[in-house]
Amino acid sequence: MKYEEQIIEGRNAVLEAFRAGRPIDRLFVLDGCQDGPVRTIVRESRKHDVILKFTDRESLDRMSPTGKHQGVIAVAAAYEYATVADILANARKKQEPPFLILLDGIEDPHNLGAIIRTANQAGAHGVIIPKRRAVGLTATVARTSAGALNYTPVAKVNNLGTVIDELKKEGIWFVCADMGGELMYNLNLKGPIGLVIGNEGSGVGRLVKEKCDFVASIPMKGDIDSLNASVAAGVLAYEIVRQRMQG
Amino acid sequence: MKYEEQIIEGRNAVLEAFRAGRPIDRLFVLDGCQDGPVRTIVRESRKHDVILKFTDRESLDRMSPTGKHQGVIAVAAAYEYATVADILANARKKQEPPFLILLDGIEDPHNLGAIIRTANQAGAHGVIIPKRRAVGLTATVARTSAGALNYTPVAKVNNLGTVIDELKKEGIWFVCADMGGELMYNLNLKGPIGLVIGNEGSGVGRLVKEKCDFVASIPMKGDIDSLNASVAAGVLAYEIVRQRMQG
Repeated sequence: MKYEEQIIEGRNAVLEAFRAGRPIDRLFVLDGCQDGPVRTIVRESRKHDVILKFTDRESLDRMSPTGKHQGVIAVAAAYEYATVADILANARKKQEPPFLILLDGIEDPHNLGAIIRTANQAGAHGVIIPKRRAVGLTATVARTSAGALNYTPVAKVNNLGTVIDELKKEGIWFVCADMGGELMYNLNLKGPIGLVIGNEGSGVGRLVKEKCDFVASIPMKGDIDSLNASVAAGVLAYEIVRQRMQG
Repeated sequence: MKYEEQIIEGRNAVLEAFRAGRPIDRLFVLDGCQDGPVRTIVRESRKHDVILKFTDRESLDRMSPTGKHQGVIAVAAAYEYATVADILANARKKQEPPFLILLDGIEDPHNLGAIIRTANQAGAHGVIIPKRRAVGLTATVARTSAGALNYTPVAKVNNLGTVIDELKKEGIWFVCADMGGELMYNLNLKGPIGLVIGNEGSGVGRLVKEKCDFVASIPMKGDIDSLNASVAAGVLAYEIVRQRMQG
């Protein structure tokens, strides 16, 4: 990702950016907005010597990529992508077996944001996304991640299959989410693991699926085809959490 | 909900509406669109004597509330709300202990749609939403539910607290999702149960929370405050599924 400015908007997202120590260049606040969260954000901005400007709703609306600024917009350096090595280092630092989430072509920024949020809360060490046919780290992703993007590294790679091959040499097992696999409760998901989640419409690609050691299925008791991609990622990630907590 | 027309758009949503036997009034298809899913939809429409019209992209875009019609828009009678009695009857018909999902003020239609989708796949017998300060069954909800709205009844009630009191008399236990509760794995979630999920920003309201028998917490290993509401609903609903599958 080239260096560029990044709009962070919404109260939670801006506050989390401050808390995480992200370098904020400028902060715009809706003139007359005086409630608690906004006052906290203004206080944070003074603490960090951020250029603060009170402005009207029209200007905020114009600046806002998603239209959901809640009266607060911060301008920061763009989110930087991590490397796969950073993610593995993150696991080593925490002295935990690696837990990675690989996304094979997630297109909806709300899903990507929600999955990064889940990755953070489930204790995954990072998220790996492909360069092509997938959404990257946009302002909507940042906002939907509710601040998780400040903590959970996201790596962007040329080819997921190649990365899986390399990580297998490090002893990591790969499980992909798909129908017709083994019921997730019956799989041993405790070791070093990469969880692969597929595209919203077409699922995990054939080439990536063939590289996976297991196919895990969520029990589907309903009348339709599948779960929302970020919900499926959450359910599977927390099955990994559950098994890991059993020791 | 008053009787009114409902736009169903997107291939999955329209196909599911046909499969579920929903009365479709009219179908609009992008002129020249000839791929498999569209041909299946056109075949279904002929089978059901639906008025079919081929039209240009501009007209479809104009009709589309979400802009994501994928070349297919159906016009149907509006989704009808079920009653709480319908939901209990659904459980009785399946000879299963009731499994309800109650939403205390979900505002984002994408979250509501994803939760109805999850409810369907997790085998919940219905979803209960409040009349005020919450999103209802809009076109975006229908699309995001990926067809689940055709199968899973959704009831709209004046007061969630009153409904909880009534359902307790039927022997249903209520568990709400919140921080600081018992770890969900340590609770017995096997019996007749109502799972309560709170608002995206403020969580479960105090009055509703006080009526719940348990507070269940998802383990949070991260640096931020919470999970996305539809992801949290999915993780908890599937903990109920896991416990029920153990018998």
